[in-house]
Parts: sequence; C-alpha cells; structure tokens
Amino acid sequence: MTQEPGLASWLQLTLSPGLGAATLRELLKQFGLPEKVLALPRAQLARYATPQALAALDSEEVARAVERALAWAEQPGRALVTLGDAAYPRLLLEIPDPPALLYCRGRTEFLNRPALAVVGSRNATAQGASNAEQFARTFSAAGLAIVSGLAQGIDAAAHRGGLAAEGSTIAVLGTGIDVTYPAVNAALAEQIAERGLLVSEYPLGTKALAHNFPRRNRLISGLAQGCLVVEAALASGSLITARAAAEQGREVFAVPGSIHSPLAKGCHALIKSGAKLAESAEDVLSELAAFRRTGFASTRAAAQRPAEGAAASLDNDPLLACMGFDPVDVDSLCARAGLPAERVSAELLRLELAGRVAALPGGLYQRVH
Amino acid sequence: MTQEPGLASWLQLTLSPGLGAATLRELLKQFGLPEKVLALPRAQLARYATPQALAALDSEEVARAVERALAWAEQPGRALVTLGDAAYPRLLLEIPDPPALLYCRGRTEFLNRPALAVVGSRNATAQGASNAEQFARTFSAAGLAIVSGLAQGIDAAAHRGGLAAEGSTIAVLGTGIDVTYPAVNAALAEQIAERGLLVSEYPLGTKALAHNFPRRNRLISGLAQGCLVVEAALASGSLITARAAAEQGREVFAVPGSIHSPLAKGCHALIKSGAKLAESAEDVLSELAAFRRTGFASTRAAAQRPAEGAAASLDNDPLLACMGFDPVDVDSLCARAGLPAERVSAELLRLELAGRVAALPGGLYQRVH
Repeated sequence: MTQEPGLASWLQLTLSPGLGAATLRELLKQFGLPEKVLALPRAQLARYATPQALAALDSEEVARAVERALAWAEQPGRALVTLGDAAYPRLLLEIPDPPALLYCRGRTEFLNRPALAVVGSRNATAQGASNAEQFARTFSAAGLAIVSGLAQGIDAAAHRGGLAAEGSTIAVLGTGIDVTYPAVNAALAEQIAERGLLVSEYPLGTKALAHNFPRRNRLISGLAQGCLVVEAALASGSLITARAAAEQGREVFAVPGSIHSPLAKGCHALIKSGAKLAESAEDVLSELAAFRRTGFASTRAAAQRPAEGAAASLDNDPLLACMGFDPVDVDSLCARAGLPAERVSAELLRLELAGRVAALPGGLYQRVH
Repeated sequence: MTQEPGLASWLQLTLSPGLGAATLRELLKQFGLPEKVLALPRAQLARYATPQALAALDSEEVARAVERALAWAEQPGRALVTLGDAAYPRLLLEIPDPPALLYCRGRTEFLNRPALAVVGSRNATAQGASNAEQFARTFSAAGLAIVSGLAQGIDAAAHRGGLAAEGSTIAVLGTGIDVTYPAVNAALAEQIAERGLLVSEYPLGTKALAHNFPRRNRLISGLAQGCLVVEAALASGSLITARAAAEQGREVFAVPGSIHSPLAKGCHALIKSGAKLAESAEDVLSELAAFRRTGFASTRAAAQRPAEGAAASLDNDPLLACMGFDPVDVDSLCARAGLPAERVSAELLRLELAGRVAALPGGLYQRVH
C-alpha cells in the first residue's frame, strides 16, 4: 500500500508512550492533522502533556518505532489506517474512544462493510461452537462481515463461519498485529489475513497483556451493527463486549440454552437485561433488516472491487440518482424510485452508513455528495 | 358444606343449555341475583334468550340436573361456589368472562390464595418435568398455590411440586369435576382433592371435549398472579394459557432451553414477545415480589384456618391497624408502621388483593372494611 505522507506523524503521536488516546484526540481537535501538532513549538504542547511525554515524543526511540512501523506497512497486504483516512471505519467514529490508528492485515475495505460481532466463551461446548459457526455462515452469506476476537472456542468458530461465505470476517486483536495469539489459531489468523481482515490498535510487538483484551472488546462491538453472544459464563469477557455494544447503541443478541448450563447463564443474563433472544440467524437478520440480503447488492459488488472501495460503487445507485441534492421524504422517494417504503428505508440506511446520505430532522434525507 | 338457599337458582341458570355465559352475566347485571331473574315473567326474559332456551330453563331435564348437582355438592369436601359467594376467586372477577359457578373439590379457601400458574407440554422431557416440579416446590414453599391443568407431563409435575409444600396446588379441569381425565392422573387428582383444590366450570358428567380445554385455560391463568411456561412446542395449549395470562394482565414467564429443542421453541417465542426469561424460581419470585415469603405470613396463617377464610385473618394486620379509614399515602404509612416503603407497598398489594384496601388515584390507599 502506498503510504500517505503524514503517516509518520500519526505514528509519532500514537507511539509516544506518555501521550494518551484522549490527549491525542484533543490535540487533533485543537490543531488539526498530526503534522500541524508536531510543527508546534513544544512549549505550546506543554498544556496537554507532561515534560516526560514531550521528551519522549522527540526521542530516538520513538523515531525508531515509527521507522519500524512504516517498514512493516510497506509489505504487501498490510496497511496503517488513521482517523483521517477515508478507509477508517465510519462506525468507529460513533464510539467515544476511536483509536487514532489501526494496524491492518488483509482487506481494509472490509472496515466499512456491514458487520455483526459474534463472540462467546473460550471454553465453548461442541454444540455452542457449531451454533456459532452456523450462525456466522448464514450472516456471512447475507453479506455481513463477522467481527470477533480470534480467541479459542466461539470466536474461532465465528471466524470460520464468516470465512465460509462472502461476508468474510474481521479479527480484532488484543496484541500487536505481528504477534500471533493464541498460537493455536495461527493458521486461522493467516487465512483471515488472506481472505478477511486482521486489525489491532496496539503497537507492533505488543504481547498478550490481560488488561488490553477488555479494552479491545469495544472495537469488536464498535465495528459492527450488532453483537451476538453465543455461549458465555456469568463472568465472561463476552459480556464486556455486549455491554460495550449496548453503550455504543448496537443491538445485542444472545443465544439461550439450558438453565442448567453454566455457559448459558451469561446469555440469559443479557436477555433479562434487554438483549434480544436469538434462536436462529434469521431472528438476528430480521432485526437487522436494513442489512439483509436485498440491501446488500451494491455493497457486495463493492467488495469485489477493493481498489475502489465501497463508496465508489454507489455512484450509480438508483436511489441516489432519484434523490437529487435537495432534502426529500421517504414517501416521495418511494414514488420516484417505484419501490416499497421498507426497501427505500433499508437503502437509505445503507447509504447513510456509506456517508452518501444524511438523515435530517423531520424524516427528511439529503444526498451528501 | 351447607348450601346457600339461592344455589338452586344459580344451577338452574347455568345448567340451561340455551343460555350462554354472556347472556347469564347480562341477566344478573340487569336483575340481580338468579332468584330474581327466575321470578320474572318469562316474557320479560324473551329479549335475552331464544324461546327454546326459555323452554329449557323450566324443563324437567334441567330440574333434574339441578337436583343432581345439589346432591353431588352435599358430600363432604365438595362445594359449588358462585359469583355471589365471598369464596369466589377475586382474581377471576378481573377477567372478562368469569364463570358464574365453580364446581370444587377440596379446599375452597385456596381460591383466594396468591397463586402462580405453571403449565407446559404433555410430552415433557424428563428434565423439563424435573424443572417444573422443582420450580413449583419453591413457589409453593414461598406460599404460592400452583395452578395447572392436570394434564400429563409438565402439568402433573407442577401439581406434584405444589403438593410438596404449604402453597399446595389447584387443578382446573376441562371436564366435569366428577370425570377423571386423564385416567393416568387419577391418583394425583385424589391427592389434590384432599390437600389442594380441584375446580371446574363444566356441568357434572362433561366428558373430555377438545374445545373445552383451550377455554378452560383462561381460568388457569385467571386464578394466578403470573404464568410460567416450562416446556412448550410452538403449537401448544400452553401458549394459549400464556396469551390468556397476558391479556388478563398477568406476568408471563418462560424457561429457555436449547435452540435445537422443539419444546423450547414455544418458550422462546414467548420471551421474544415480551415474556420474562425464568432461569430459576427466584427469577419469578423476585418479579412477583409482593408475593414473597415476607408478605405471606398472614395468608399462610389463614390457610391453616380454612373455616374462616383468608380475609378474617387480616383483622389483626398491623398495617390495616395503622390505616384508619381515611385515604393515606405510602410515605405516611411507612412512618406510622415503621416499615420500609418496599415492604409497605408489598403489604398494600396483598391487602388490595384480599379486598381490604382500595387503591385510589394519586397514590392514596383506603381501608375498605
């Protein structure tokens, strides 16, 4: 991937040990792109960071780390995607703490594909793993990318199900993207790098540290429109992902089980607190109606033209063509397009997610570009 | 049981083949007690019933049926409870179509005991039956009568669980009360007649007719504060009971199971449409908090004095004593009784169900008698 010129600045800021993510976002908000931040006199940055952090920012060590990351990203199939990139996942922009930079291996165009998180216990039962794989395959066949965490058990089964159809799969790692963890899933990770996408927000070489995984879970839910928990004990990382999903406004689904199964208890707790009971993949798809097969035609086509990305494929979208650039209501669009309201609403949501249409107050929609 | 003088009139009206239940309620509403209805010139009744129905009303056949029912009820442990009786279940007065007369065997004072319906499949799994019995035993130990339909499978297990503790059990039959159905539960029915209560709205000798059972189900739910479905297929009589419960404003609970079990599908459908997921008896009891152990002290005491009924035992109720006969709010009652608001609210609900307290607009309560 050809690297954008400012990438070194993004890396310099994100790799400086004393600069937290919140500080970084504040700096970007105040001063614009990282290059502008770094061009400022260090005295002007003193309000935002400690002297140690400022010293680190200009250290040899950080400079070497930047070089290593740039060299890593030069290899085929690798990419660094920043908050400023068009390829940055739009859904992550909705969450309170989007990472400034994502290390990616695989098909970065999947970052903006309609997606569903499928997570659960590392100690899954055989039936649970089979359920996860079946559900994921159906979602993937309906065009949804399956987002999970590359753990053993439910996660691995979900990734396998995703790889089995055109929606494919995204694994969000809790380690550096160059660290294989868990080792038992090394072959699966390579398959995902080839036909799906591996993503990490952590610097290269970051080992498996317990505290990074719960934090990583917000990206699993954040990249997806909904989150399905297949099997989970009451004290389970999957419930952290489900909570993050709910906080991010994503729909949460859980698969029920026997009241005597410890791995059903987490799912039952979720259902009691408002998650939708998912008896079948169809249950989930009917809730995520906007993302069903009929709504995916152009998104799927886009996935087959990775160089252009999803947005370009919408230029010939018949609904966009009907819209003009004035605000318009759904009824008028139905009449113009000759489509039922349900279909038009689904298409509008898809276009909105693709950044081509904005929803205005009063039920009006406007073409953005 | 000594029979009230007007009983023959109740029987004459309910046993006349052409008079529907709705017509009967309309007549009672217009003219008062059955004796008054029957004292009217038949011409005056012609507005309400067909000539055939009026002829049947005064027929020899109906007169003989009345005699048979009176003779049946003369035996120990039997009773006919009419809409006009104090023993008539208050909860049934809330439903749109309360039966005018109930044939009872056993302890009629249970008709006004706090109760929970527990129903499910006739073809229950061994685990399902075990769950039903365990749940029912816990509810019964908490003072709730278990209401069910005496069918094989879940119903029978629920009755057994109810009999195992002090809440006991009520079986609502879809046949005449003198008809044993199903035969396999004959011994269970006798145990219930002895330590619980058998109830039917159907005339003596009514055989098992398919169309009577769904209609009977409204009484199973109607007699209870809530309805728990343990195992049920998608096309199941238990779902009719659950729907009746929801329509009657009762809380509906369902036990989840494997997504691959046909007998979990009915329960899952209920949860999807708003029923509470019940993983344990405690889940149900915490929802029905007003009916928990702490709230039952006086109701349980009443059950041990069947001759007096539940209402009498409330005369010494400390909260009633605090109330006087003026409208009062919960905060004032908490202060007077020295009890927390949660406890006072629960007691008020119990007293309201016992007909001793009325809830007024504006969060006020008033002692009724």
